[in-house]
Amino acid sequence: MKVSELGEFGLIDRLAELLAAHGQGFSDRLAVGIGDDAAVWAGDGGAVIATTDTLVQDVHFLSERTSWRDLGWKALAVNVSDVVAMGGEPDFALVTLALPPEVDVEAVDDLYRGLAEACEAFGATIAGGDIVRAPVTVVTLALTGRAGLDGSGEPLVLRRGGAREGDVIAVTGTLGGAAAGLRALREGDDGSDNALVQRHLRPRPPLAAGPAAVAAGLRCAIDVSDGLLQDLGHVCRASRLAAVVWADKVPIDPGLANAVEAGEALRLAATGGEDYELLVAGPRERIDALAEAIDVPLTVVGEMVIEAEHNARLLDASGHAIEVDIAGWDHLRG
Amino acid sequence: MKVSELGEFGLIDRLAELLAAHGQGFSDRLAVGIGDDAAVWAGDGGAVIATTDTLVQDVHFLSERTSWRDLGWKALAVNVSDVVAMGGEPDFALVTLALPPEVDVEAVDDLYRGLAEACEAFGATIAGGDIVRAPVTVVTLALTGRAGLDGSGEPLVLRRGGAREGDVIAVTGTLGGAAAGLRALREGDDGSDNALVQRHLRPRPPLAAGPAAVAAGLRCAIDVSDGLLQDLGHVCRASRLAAVVWADKVPIDPGLANAVEAGEALRLAATGGEDYELLVAGPRERIDALAEAIDVPLTVVGEMVIEAEHNARLLDASGHAIEVDIAGWDHLRG
Repeated sequence: MKVSELGEFGLIDRLAELLAAHGQGFSDRLAVGIGDDAAVWAGDGGAVIATTDTLVQDVHFLSERTSWRDLGWKALAVNVSDVVAMGGEPDFALVTLALPPEVDVEAVDDLYRGLAEACEAFGATIAGGDIVRAPVTVVTLALTGRAGLDGSGEPLVLRRGGAREGDVIAVTGTLGGAAAGLRALREGDDGSDNALVQRHLRPRPPLAAGPAAVAAGLRCAIDVSDGLLQDLGHVCRASRLAAVVWADKVPIDPGLANAVEAGEALRLAATGGEDYELLVAGPRERIDALAEAIDVPLTVVGEMVIEAEHNARLLDASGHAIEVDIAGWDHLRG
Repeated sequence: MKVSELGEFGLIDRLAELLAAHGQGFSDRLAVGIGDDAAVWAGDGGAVIATTDTLVQDVHFLSERTSWRDLGWKALAVNVSDVVAMGGEPDFALVTLALPPEVDVEAVDDLYRGLAEACEAFGATIAGGDIVRAPVTVVTLALTGRAGLDGSGEPLVLRRGGAREGDVIAVTGTLGGAAAGLRALREGDDGSDNALVQRHLRPRPPLAAGPAAVAAGLRCAIDVSDGLLQDLGHVCRASRLAAVVWADKVPIDPGLANAVEAGEALRLAATGGEDYELLVAGPRERIDALAEAIDVPLTVVGEMVIEAEHNARLLDASGHAIEVDIAGWDHLRG
């Protein structure tokens, strides 16, 4: 079987099992291992979060339509999103740059300028890295983050598996804009004054929302990177629950109103990837407390329910299922 | 200018300067930033080491002649070597796997088996990672390590810039074997019973030597990954000194005696890469103490001297310079 047939998530499950059989993938000191937005272990005075995300030329970015500076920004931002989704603050980054030998030095300068801008915006520090030759450009960042410990020394973080029956589900900001921006970019929009394209090129994860969610007593989150329904599906499987999402509550990016018709706007908001917003699940009063504490919008979009299938479903205002292709993005199938 | 013209080390210097101008690449909490084997920062109860190294298909490994299992082993081992060179112990690893969609799932299984074997051998734990699609296979590991703190809370680690005039230079194990093994592999040797090829495919950094060097009071080291003279050159520039290496003291891999003629054996030992031995510099009595403490051979090969050019030179028994191309491996020029 080819990896493209098994798909990203099937392969991750398979490898996690294989590693577990070798005594790998977990340890006494590892609080969160494979299968969440980031790994977490307890340090002496706090928890360490560690994540890695990679951008491959013409898979994750269009080399002809993405500036090196935006690429640098995005390479950090997507990792920041994972740290936020664990409830932590970004700390140190390692940058691995694989480059074709014919790339201009000035292009690499621009990549690092974008990285530095993102580090400043998100409070991260580049600590080192590796530069190698490759047939295509690949930018991989590993980012550490910090979180607190509870009274018994356990990391205070947000987990995919932390949802309970009856929890309400909320998302920060708006959805669908990045997917519409990618489409506009593909269709030739240069993006310089298109807010949707900027949303795709320069994601801004809600930095304060992760730690604020922990402070509000929430324990479940994921970042919306592959599409709302797909990412919420991960929460469902990890929490052994189902989720319903009310279509009329989904906070659709206002820029979509002019760009696409209503059904397509909903589809992009429910399944389009790369919004890098934060999805949280928890008791209503804690969700309300989080909404009070942060200065980005937080919208309740659904709730966790008990059903046999651990999946997320989209419902219309009268409670009927809306069929959408929730496959979202698979990093191996593409 | 193309990155291949500037070269890996020129590019790293340039980017470190650019980052510094943006207030990046260092921080109050970062004890070691860009330009050493790994980054180091002080945690509350100890120092955190973080490094990343990447293996690109047909740049760092021959896809037709490297088993997936050996590739997994090597991907971890090369990062372990960096942690050892900082004087630390390996801790948690993040694995980023970029794969062509047509790769067999069984191949990925084997890669992870090799990774798991190396984790067991070197005391590391896989904590997470990322899997993406790419035109060629790229395996990137980020590895954290642990080291101690001194009485004032500063990390107790080995630095490239820690050498002093008169320090003797010593290396663990033997050199040149991996480069000869790579050559044999290229020439069609399947490597299964060739110790040199095994040396190339399954490097074994001297795990205990890093922490033992710190315990012996040493403060300067680098791993021999790009070639003895080139790596020692990094120590020279970071320490603002020169180094002389006595050709007749270089511990040439005994397997080379049968494989190549003597001059070529010396050339491979002095400039061939991927041996992943540890090079240390320090006062003679501390080097002797380290030799006593570890169960791998430690050979004194030269000393640090004051010269205008901060480079490493190879001398014959009568003190005459031996000219070798010390360029070693450049990850951008290839």
